Amino acid sequence: MPNPTAAMLVIGDEILSGRTRDSNMHHLAGALTIHGIDLCEVRVVSDRPAAIQSAVRALSDGYDHVFTSGGIGPTHDDITAENVAKAFGVAISVRDDARAILQAHYDRKGIEMNEARLRMARIPDGARLIENPVSAAPGFILENVHVMAGVPAIFEAMVAGVLPELAGGAPVQSRNMTVARGEGDIAAPLSELVQQYPDLSVGSYPAMKAGEFFVNIVVRGQDGVRVDAAMDTLRGLLKE
Amino acid sequence: MPNPTAAMLVIGDEILSGRTRDSNMHHLAGALTIHGIDLCEVRVVSDRPAAIQSAVRALSDGYDHVFTSGGIGPTHDDITAENVAKAFGVAISVRDDARAILQAHYDRKGIEMNEARLRMARIPDGARLIENPVSAAPGFILENVHVMAGVPAIFEAMVAGVLPELAGGAPVQSRNMTVARGEGDIAAPLSELVQQYPDLSVGSYPAMKAGEFFVNIVVRGQDGVRVDAAMDTLRGLLKE
Repeated sequence: MPNPTAAMLVIGDEILSGRTRDSNMHHLAGALTIHGIDLCEVRVVSDRPAAIQSAVRALSDGYDHVFTSGGIGPTHDDITAENVAKAFGVAISVRDDARAILQAHYDRKGIEMNEARLRMARIPDGARLIENPVSAAPGFILENVHVMAGVPAIFEAMVAGVLPELAGGAPVQSRNMTVARGEGDIAAPLSELVQQYPDLSVGSYPAMKAGEFFVNIVVRGQDGVRVDAAMDTLRGLLKE
Repeated sequence: MPNPTAAMLVIGDEILSGRTRDSNMHHLAGALTIHGIDLCEVRVVSDRPAAIQSAVRALSDGYDHVFTSGGIGPTHDDITAENVAKAFGVAISVRDDARAILQAHYDRKGIEMNEARLRMARIPDGARLIENPVSAAPGFILENVHVMAGVPAIFEAMVAGVLPELAGGAPVQSRNMTVARGEGDIAAPLSELVQQYPDLSVGSYPAMKAGEFFVNIVVRGQDGVRVDAAMDTLRGLLKE
């Protein structure tokens, strides 16, 4: 059975302007792979209502699960929650359970609840909350969309919280080999390998070090024995 | 006049599996910002023909310029060139000018041209070549889509080569201020600032250090005098 599919939506002008280097994509990609969910697409969009809504709709329709990152804080440019609600045509308002979580957190810290902070208790109708063990303000799950914070420590904690609730397929087994040759030298043996193992994924990833090319060859599949066999075959093909 | 718009398409299973951490997006975002082109959207898709074709069509229709990264090498999983051609309904074949560039490079290096390497001379009909000063195999420009390599050193060299040919708008002026307070404390003054300077972009980017929140406030616009004025106003608002 194929693994469940997923997409990610990163929301934020700061990534697109080059000001901030996103790290949530790489984190989620690794966590989903271990969990047996295939991350198939990522989109990064700016803080514009139309951009967020159309990406949410497209990704929600196209994949089993969607994970968003960014735009759920208290400031004027945090517009993710209301636009996810709009994407699904549901209302959004301050919800008692979310407000209570925030109030308890601020009471503990001696911080005053104000209008801006109360915005973080706005939850779309029908959504379930995602716990935020770092700074209390919750994320939420609406339909198949998981709406999470952009601050990496919070994003990662939320991912750790939601993944155990999602059914995963077989974790992907992966073996790799580094070859100090150009891709052009090993393309023919790799094509031969792909023909012999059509059930596996064979990737060829060139890189450079000190001006010399080398290639990382990665073989992936759900059956570890089969992946090992392919690596043996590959070693033979490269010797020929 | 608004700046030209751009989108990026990153092609590669290795990014989506978490194996490789993409660095080309961050590089392109910074280079476009300096050049006065607004990067509005990024998509990362896997090495699947349908995914590449539909993303190329959507982004080419939606933005002035598109930049792709990855999938133009000699191996079986390098399928970008043929799918960009298909997205535009044009043929692709080995072209003499591209073949000559590769042949000269391999002659210099004492490397034999083979069938795999010759794949890198396949160029869609009507495309212009993008020079590759690192390893010769060219990228290309078809319609408004710039097809470039995924290896960061080559991608960056190609970006440096193509940007001077593109008209840029006014480079964005940006000033920032770090405030050791939570976003919930400064949301009201920021909203006030946004109302006073509707022509500028005001971003609020929370981060954590040693368990404490701080906020980077970034004000951006094409008129540096106006951006400076906004920063003065902001300092006043935060003192109140």
